[in-house]
Amino acid sequence: MSTVMSVEQACAAAKEVAQWYADTDLPTRAGLLEAIADAMDAARDDLVPIAVDESRLGVDRLTGEVGRTTGQLRLMAQVVREGAYLGVVLDTALPEATPPRPDLRRMRVPLGPVAVFAASNFPFAFSTLGGDTASALAAGCPVVVKPNPGHPRLSDAVMAIAQEALRAAGAPDGVLTMVSHELQDGIDLVNDDRIEAVAFTGSQRGGLALARLAADRPRPIPFFGELGSVNPIFVTPEAAADRGASIAEGWVGSFTLGAGQFCTKPGLLIAPRDEAIRAAAVAAVGGVAGQGMLTSAIRDAFLRGVGERTDISSVEVLHEGGWDADTDTVRATLFAVPADVVLADPRLLEECFGPMSLLVEYDDPQQMLALADVLPGLLAAGVQGQENDAIVGDLMPKLVAHAGRVLWNGWPTGVAVTWSMQHGGPFPATTAPATTSVGAAAVDRFVRPVTWQGMPQSVLPPALRDGNPWGVPRRVDGLMELS
Amino acid sequence: MSTVMSVEQACAAAKEVAQWYADTDLPTRAGLLEAIADAMDAARDDLVPIAVDESRLGVDRLTGEVGRTTGQLRLMAQVVREGAYLGVVLDTALPEATPPRPDLRRMRVPLGPVAVFAASNFPFAFSTLGGDTASALAAGCPVVVKPNPGHPRLSDAVMAIAQEALRAAGAPDGVLTMVSHELQDGIDLVNDDRIEAVAFTGSQRGGLALARLAADRPRPIPFFGELGSVNPIFVTPEAAADRGASIAEGWVGSFTLGAGQFCTKPGLLIAPRDEAIRAAAVAAVGGVAGQGMLTSAIRDAFLRGVGERTDISSVEVLHEGGWDADTDTVRATLFAVPADVVLADPRLLEECFGPMSLLVEYDDPQQMLALADVLPGLLAAGVQGQENDAIVGDLMPKLVAHAGRVLWNGWPTGVAVTWSMQHGGPFPATTAPATTSVGAAAVDRFVRPVTWQGMPQSVLPPALRDGNPWGVPRRVDGLMELS
Repeated sequence: MSTVMSVEQACAAAKEVAQWYADTDLPTRAGLLEAIADAMDAARDDLVPIAVDESRLGVDRLTGEVGRTTGQLRLMAQVVREGAYLGVVLDTALPEATPPRPDLRRMRVPLGPVAVFAASNFPFAFSTLGGDTASALAAGCPVVVKPNPGHPRLSDAVMAIAQEALRAAGAPDGVLTMVSHELQDGIDLVNDDRIEAVAFTGSQRGGLALARLAADRPRPIPFFGELGSVNPIFVTPEAAADRGASIAEGWVGSFTLGAGQFCTKPGLLIAPRDEAIRAAAVAAVGGVAGQGMLTSAIRDAFLRGVGERTDISSVEVLHEGGWDADTDTVRATLFAVPADVVLADPRLLEECFGPMSLLVEYDDPQQMLALADVLPGLLAAGVQGQENDAIVGDLMPKLVAHAGRVLWNGWPTGVAVTWSMQHGGPFPATTAPATTSVGAAAVDRFVRPVTWQGMPQSVLPPALRDGNPWGVPRRVDGLMELS
Repeated sequence: MSTVMSVEQACAAAKEVAQWYADTDLPTRAGLLEAIADAMDAARDDLVPIAVDESRLGVDRLTGEVGRTTGQLRLMAQVVREGAYLGVVLDTALPEATPPRPDLRRMRVPLGPVAVFAASNFPFAFSTLGGDTASALAAGCPVVVKPNPGHPRLSDAVMAIAQEALRAAGAPDGVLTMVSHELQDGIDLVNDDRIEAVAFTGSQRGGLALARLAADRPRPIPFFGELGSVNPIFVTPEAAADRGASIAEGWVGSFTLGAGQFCTKPGLLIAPRDEAIRAAAVAAVGGVAGQGMLTSAIRDAFLRGVGERTDISSVEVLHEGGWDADTDTVRATLFAVPADVVLADPRLLEECFGPMSLLVEYDDPQQMLALADVLPGLLAAGVQGQENDAIVGDLMPKLVAHAGRVLWNGWPTGVAVTWSMQHGGPFPATTAPATTSVGAAAVDRFVRPVTWQGMPQSVLPPALRDGNPWGVPRRVDGLMELS
């Protein structure tokens, strides 16, 4: 039996259970997330081969990704159980004040049914049951998934496991549903008045089109688009002199990982003009085996992106990769370009999926500051350096101004799922820069605050009642209390 | 000397000081807010007469409003001093984990220069130096004010006091500036690439037009529009029987307060068909004196709104008010309309400024649920009832779903400035329903999170360093710590 429903069926089912689900107490909701996680872990060895077949990513990577996915669900369960995300704030009535202050109690409530658009490049962790689904469910919102066309069998298998786990744990149908992977279903979903928010991980082109749809509805809704960026890494002259070759190798490892199909791929390494760096990078790229790409569309876009950069006269091809038709695999391509050319040509600051990156060579470290000023919004940016390097004090504030995550002597691929992670940066890296799609704060996207004024105890939600029956962290009369 | 600058001058000045201001430590920034508050309090008796003259609101009301305004600045200073709004979250490195977890530290940073559009109906509290300005300054963002044309002399006087206070406290020029009240300056401001966010309090028409401008920029920015709503109050049959007349009087007091020029004005009272309620309301309205309105444009819109409702055949005029040309004052108008007519005519759910409201009469309490279902997004909604009344259990979740604030036996005018306030509801009441323009959380609009990964101590912002040198509340390895 297929798990695919029509948009009408899925939205009706989600709307039907929205109030029930919003009203679940925290341990119950956390338990549902954990039940899904347990079921996914148990099915891992059945799911990974389907994912390998459909995505062409490796067994080890995909096995690890199942763990990441269930880890996300379990972190969300922790977030729910603790209840700090509810943002409970109470202010006692002051009837003697001028004007008299009523009793006021604030808490965040779920938005209602959420549409989640699955990504292709993490068939588990950013797909059907990925971070967006986990965090919307954690917030108390039913989820309707628009699956990614890149892995239809896997989407179906994962959805069946999750729905079965929810059913076994006592949740009504409608908490988690899925429509087809046809684009029109996605459009209809965003336009459905029962949908209250949309989470999307994918390309800038697709994301901006859907963002416009969400904004143009008669009743606009929030659109959380995690789109992507070029994620530059800046190498100080001192670091280059000290360990240029090893930096070059680290960079090649990061931008060729998973065939360069990460939104956090370092698309630019900004380094002093230095033969040792060039040589080490070329050698490292030469050692990377051909890799299959997720879909033929992504492969074609990659080859087109390589061609466009090759055609720019000041761009030098340091290592030519390309496509092997027999095996349908691609090999990594390495470019070099002077910093002032990048300053003058914003096309070179655009993201392109696939195993390809640009070595941006500067003659004067001040060119790093000029480049940092013209950067578009970024998911991540970083420095390879020593803390006393002269440029760091001026460079860091510019990176903070343009990125959601700033790295020191690290590479942007590999986004840890933690309480402190921020995965989302200024536009156009994301369409809602104050939010994150990874980490504990991802749940914040799917709630909004409501204040209850002068309300009797029996009419208040339990988390707001006197005596703190749910035991959640609260701020009372301005002071934070841990439970 | 006028305080008005060109858009170019103001944006250049704001951009110039943005990094300095973002880097101020918390006590310094709180001190600046308090210095402005002190200066405003000291100038109160000079400012109130200008405000009375320009707004036609009363001396007592405006004197109280200065206190509210400086109270807002001081609450924001408290919020800044405490530092919980920074949202500091630290996760220790776990080098032995698979994959190894780096040291991660998250904090919210100011967005950069903010444009604040001042409102007419609170010449102090939602204007030049109102809640939007206070919360953007609290966040560490320079502010460029687009003043309201309704009170140009007051705007200039208030801005001069605030700028002088900032200067005396050691802040560079550019932290707080003002352009002219011409519409074109407002448009140019939203379109200026140096502006990072816009806060607007005003009409739906103006707000939605500016929201579109902000979204259509080459680099879209957040737009926080607090637009307004009809703020219905539902009266249970039991409450009507018990104290219908006193409810009617309370309602009239609330919708005629300040000549009905509040975005929280209760525009609908939904009550059982009951002669006692009608009679009490008519008597109360008859006792309300004529009032001057803020501007001739608002007065004309009010008279047009009265005329439109009068023209609907099923709408009954219970008390005819109107305009006295000699004194340029308006008198309150009271309408009655059957609940099923409102259900069929969404025009009756629209907000209209001025002393006018609709008594929506139901024959069956279930009609309250049907009405609650068709409500647009609201700033506030409320119930007049007893906690065991039959309808309350079904009605409350519908009000929570449609409003930012729900009231019990209270009236929506008078929004307390507290830690727990939520002033902002689902679209179209506001354009960013997860935010508030009143209360401590107003600061959250003007920050976004950034995560520092693997960063040396000296490169980290002080609030993120080991040992918590700023003494702010933090979450460390998942556990909240108060300082």
